[in-house]
Amino acid sequence: MHGELDLIRRIAAQAGVRDGVRVGIGDDAAVLDDGTVLALDMVVDGVHVSRSTHSPADIGHTALAVNLSDIAAMGARPVAAVVGLGVPDDLDPDDVARMYASMDATAAAHSMSVVGGDVSASPVLTLSVAIVGRMPDGVPPVLRSGGRAGDLLVVSGPLGASAAGLRLLRGGSRDPDTVARDALVAAHLRPVPLVAQGLNLAESGATAMLDISDGLLLDADRLARASGLRADIDLGRVPRAPGVDMVARRAGVAPDLFAATGGDDYQLLAAMPPSAGLASYLTVVGRLAEGTPGVRALRGGVDVTPHRLGWEHGGT
Amino acid sequence: MHGELDLIRRIAAQAGVRDGVRVGIGDDAAVLDDGTVLALDMVVDGVHVSRSTHSPADIGHTALAVNLSDIAAMGARPVAAVVGLGVPDDLDPDDVARMYASMDATAAAHSMSVVGGDVSASPVLTLSVAIVGRMPDGVPPVLRSGGRAGDLLVVSGPLGASAAGLRLLRGGSRDPDTVARDALVAAHLRPVPLVAQGLNLAESGATAMLDISDGLLLDADRLARASGLRADIDLGRVPRAPGVDMVARRAGVAPDLFAATGGDDYQLLAAMPPSAGLASYLTVVGRLAEGTPGVRALRGGVDVTPHRLGWEHGGT
Repeated sequence: MHGELDLIRRIAAQAGVRDGVRVGIGDDAAVLDDGTVLALDMVVDGVHVSRSTHSPADIGHTALAVNLSDIAAMGARPVAAVVGLGVPDDLDPDDVARMYASMDATAAAHSMSVVGGDVSASPVLTLSVAIVGRMPDGVPPVLRSGGRAGDLLVVSGPLGASAAGLRLLRGGSRDPDTVARDALVAAHLRPVPLVAQGLNLAESGATAMLDISDGLLLDADRLARASGLRADIDLGRVPRAPGVDMVARRAGVAPDLFAATGGDDYQLLAAMPPSAGLASYLTVVGRLAEGTPGVRALRGGVDVTPHRLGWEHGGT
Repeated sequence: MHGELDLIRRIAAQAGVRDGVRVGIGDDAAVLDDGTVLALDMVVDGVHVSRSTHSPADIGHTALAVNLSDIAAMGARPVAAVVGLGVPDDLDPDDVARMYASMDATAAAHSMSVVGGDVSASPVLTLSVAIVGRMPDGVPPVLRSGGRAGDLLVVSGPLGASAAGLRLLRGGSRDPDTVARDALVAAHLRPVPLVAQGLNLAESGATAMLDISDGLLLDADRLARASGLRADIDLGRVPRAPGVDMVARRAGVAPDLFAATGGDDYQLLAAMPPSAGLASYLTVVGRLAEGTPGVRALRGGVDVTPHRLGWEHGGT
């Protein structure tokens, strides 16, 4: 199924783009000629979220957050979203109310609105959220493809928290020594889309940007290939959230690789000209260079790029 | 399940609307302050379409057509769409290619583009399409709520074809005397969204409009209630597609009621001031009047409003 999903994604990316579209398929979001930004992301129970670990409020929040993160990754501000809800027979209407209240609270926190959508019967709980944003006046959208050789690669915050949280949820452990447990679990269940940081990065001259959804290495690979460059990531500089090291070691994974390949980080990865001033929340993790397009993971200058770069949602 | 879906739809319609939104939840589409129009509609296998009767190309076309029809019902022109595809294990990638090629052809026919979206594993084939349109300069969006007492109610073409086509598909009959069979089946499998007609009605001064998706009477009821008026529909004036009468009689349903309660017509219902000039494709089927909000179906002046006004997609 995984290979077929990849094939299907390639098929889905072949539609023709006509008048009125500035950026079509292949970036975090599409951009129309008038600066309207448009994205759609689905959240399917058992694939991206799980009704056994996520509360209805978590699911509603997450469905909107993944879309807000796409808007952030273009450097746009969100305006409105529409929601397609597929409802299985066993879903309690009260849980739907909690889901929408949570979505609305997240929308309010970003001064945007849920303005409609569709509800249908479905064998599985599915939320398809489409979001419309707008580029600020005079700010061009930040694409994946705009990186230049010599640009610094920066991340907006520590990585690995969501992947560690998922592992804790699945393992069910409640060790008192995992002091960061609650924060790690929250990072998985309640990801925070970094809309203000995306606007700031766009206005600070980022040449390329995306949100890290499938692991830093895999997403750096995507940015590098889109820009026709090599991305060198220095694993030693990748910031790790508190508690990630312990979870990684228990899982038998080197903490630096755990943080660089875990999914659902919702942090932004951007390429910045070396001359640009860097805001204090940013950490330099590598650099774009001429070379075979793709990512290299370096540890003490040695290429330790793993075969599996990250996580691709393909069902379980 | 049906009652629960209604409840869930009401829950989903309660989100708060904030700055930047002119028309929120409750119309065919939302309208933002800058004239951007946004809608989302889902097509789920076994609910809105069936893989046993619809080809992949039919399904792709239909998923985009239902959204184009929402844009048409506001009087807007379509610009771009994003597609969320839920893929079951048994779906052949070649069928996905046919689905997207068909969507792209329908997009091309309306000078708009499919600009991205998302693909996920799912137990059931689901297409969630979100569409962005734009109001023409100087033309306000035509809402359901703008009707005025005395306005004429007009439809954009003959009704009942899709409902008759569905019945023929399910019955499997191939009587040679059903000469209109192919056209009726095509009306069900390949609905034509009336974008040009929607633009024309908006520019001709329509005060209220929607697309007839769940039967003329049910949708007239919605328009009437949104406008706070009574809609009197004269069943004798409702245009019926060729072949509908025969299918209706075989089903034991009066042809005029069959045409006024069948679903998936994709025709537009609009309220027009009596002074407005009516384009030749329009048929007057009734009138808005002061009174208890809702629809009345009249046959020779006698109220014959059925209990079941139309079809609400709630699963089977």
